[in-house]
Amino acid sequence: MSLSEFDTISQYFNSARLGFRRSGVSLGIGDDGAVIDPPQGAPISMSMDLLVEGVHFPVKAESRHIASRALAVNLSDLSAMTARPLCFTLGLSLPNLDNDWLEGFSEGLSSMAKRFDCPLVGGDLTRSPAGTPIVIAIQVHGYHLDNAPVLRSTAQTGDGVFVTGSLGDGAIGLCSLGLESHLGSSIALDLAALSEEHRSYLSRAYYAPEPRIDFALAAASLMTACIDISDGLAGDLGHILTSSGVGATVNSTLIPYSLAALAHVSLEGRLQAALYGGDDYELCFTAPAHVAEQLYRIAASENLGLQRSGEITLGSELRLLNGSGIEILSQNQAYQHFAPRASEQ
Amino acid sequence: MSLSEFDTISQYFNSARLGFRRSGVSLGIGDDGAVIDPPQGAPISMSMDLLVEGVHFPVKAESRHIASRALAVNLSDLSAMTARPLCFTLGLSLPNLDNDWLEGFSEGLSSMAKRFDCPLVGGDLTRSPAGTPIVIAIQVHGYHLDNAPVLRSTAQTGDGVFVTGSLGDGAIGLCSLGLESHLGSSIALDLAALSEEHRSYLSRAYYAPEPRIDFALAAASLMTACIDISDGLAGDLGHILTSSGVGATVNSTLIPYSLAALAHVSLEGRLQAALYGGDDYELCFTAPAHVAEQLYRIAASENLGLQRSGEITLGSELRLLNGSGIEILSQNQAYQHFAPRASEQ
Repeated sequence: MSLSEFDTISQYFNSARLGFRRSGVSLGIGDDGAVIDPPQGAPISMSMDLLVEGVHFPVKAESRHIASRALAVNLSDLSAMTARPLCFTLGLSLPNLDNDWLEGFSEGLSSMAKRFDCPLVGGDLTRSPAGTPIVIAIQVHGYHLDNAPVLRSTAQTGDGVFVTGSLGDGAIGLCSLGLESHLGSSIALDLAALSEEHRSYLSRAYYAPEPRIDFALAAASLMTACIDISDGLAGDLGHILTSSGVGATVNSTLIPYSLAALAHVSLEGRLQAALYGGDDYELCFTAPAHVAEQLYRIAASENLGLQRSGEITLGSELRLLNGSGIEILSQNQAYQHFAPRASEQ
Repeated sequence: MSLSEFDTISQYFNSARLGFRRSGVSLGIGDDGAVIDPPQGAPISMSMDLLVEGVHFPVKAESRHIASRALAVNLSDLSAMTARPLCFTLGLSLPNLDNDWLEGFSEGLSSMAKRFDCPLVGGDLTRSPAGTPIVIAIQVHGYHLDNAPVLRSTAQTGDGVFVTGSLGDGAIGLCSLGLESHLGSSIALDLAALSEEHRSYLSRAYYAPEPRIDFALAAASLMTACIDISDGLAGDLGHILTSSGVGATVNSTLIPYSLAALAHVSLEGRLQAALYGGDDYELCFTAPAHVAEQLYRIAASENLGLQRSGEITLGSELRLLNGSGIEILSQNQAYQHFAPRASEQ
């Protein structure tokens, strides 16, 4: 069955599943634009990601996984701004219209959209030539009621460097799916040895990262700077350092890992995955020492791990220390989309 | 020279050319999100378009033309909402990074962004696999200070149907570039007979459509419903009719054409191009008869053509009349992106 663009939007995207009403959204799908009117004229944070099949998600991945991950990754950007989700827009370029694919995609989006009360308000659906990759553009919009946006550029010397959850699971999760991350074989995950529980956990870590919205909103006023970890701790903490004009030390023994990572990946592999793997979508933020206890209490109330892994210093360098405080030399391989990769050299 | 994603953004996109400051934009490129804070907590209209190489713009088109057109088309959506441009975001998926291409693209965006005081505030740049089409996602954001958004759904029986500028030039412009529109050969433009002046005019009509922002802002309070003409008058006026639950008559002798269209395209070809061609990005709006004189004065002060081409009626049909008021039968071929096209059947 062939559906027109209008029919497709009306069947899969403009439904109670995705186009639901919420306050602050005055007009959703169906006009030349959507209209938002956030409460009390609150400032609005917004973030766009472009996801290309074969680059940002595996070819032939299930559409519900692609969808929930695409929206989760964007909501993670909102959490890094400490914004409350309001709504999102979707641009979808598809080489063909497959009903099953669209049904799964719509369901995956819907589950994430409803959890965060973040309806779809507009976008564009277009057909790309046969054989070209699926491209997904998502832009999320959030508002700031009680707190100003927390930026990357305001870390202070002496602040602690905190990370939520566990690191490295994004890259290890990609390996658990039988796919190779840009780190090549350095993670060395033994697929045959994985328990079903750990396999499921790691697959979810890659496909369904958890945006740390609630924690970010509760902790916003205590943070001095914040970013989400999409490229690996080294690269993303590096952005805070560059923007803030500071340096940092990270203690490699204070990087949090999941039980699955601890059970199946070597110390060196875990460290590589945490520092350079990316796709974790945990928060890395800075805060003064005297608020650490408050932060731990907030994290505990959310049932979320929180680890103080380092400290902001003078200078401009990121230095990785071992448990004895000795610097470990480590080449920065933080993933940059256009940097030459090993496979292409 | 190979540039990383970060270098590329910093060289071509985060410059004085595109990332310029304006009121209402608190934070631009460089963090996890942009932050906007429109004056007086004004409502915000936003619209996203996805443009795929080979579908929405010709393969090998000059990048400055692609860029200015992509932004103009989005600004046209803002004009149809009667919103004042505030800022835009850009998602760009490129199979390779070519400095000349990026330079032209950045310049094309910049000329349009500066004219409408609409800076780039964020987005995403990604590399797609070699051989895949360029994909451009643009989302524009505008605000409403003195007037509410004008919707598609509020046309009233008895209103006049007005169109700005001239119609059909988008599709005729595509033909003037030696490319065939989805209308096939029905426009029958004789390329050899085109004067240089008309060739240049028509090429600009396709590549540099003029967003009718100033007119829309000045006339907003007089309009009852508004849309921009991206798919052709039949399809876009049809959206107003469907949304508003009304019908309309359009008098075919009152459709405005450019001198170039009058000189080089038959009456039948012009009508096809106006009704079904699309890519005109003129405004089609409804307004009561008693404000027509005010509307003409506003248009004249902008040096913009304005034509009352029809009337909103009871019912749900769009009926096309000739000069004697006799209905002309005409199959609706309004372009839908996923409808089967002649070339694919």
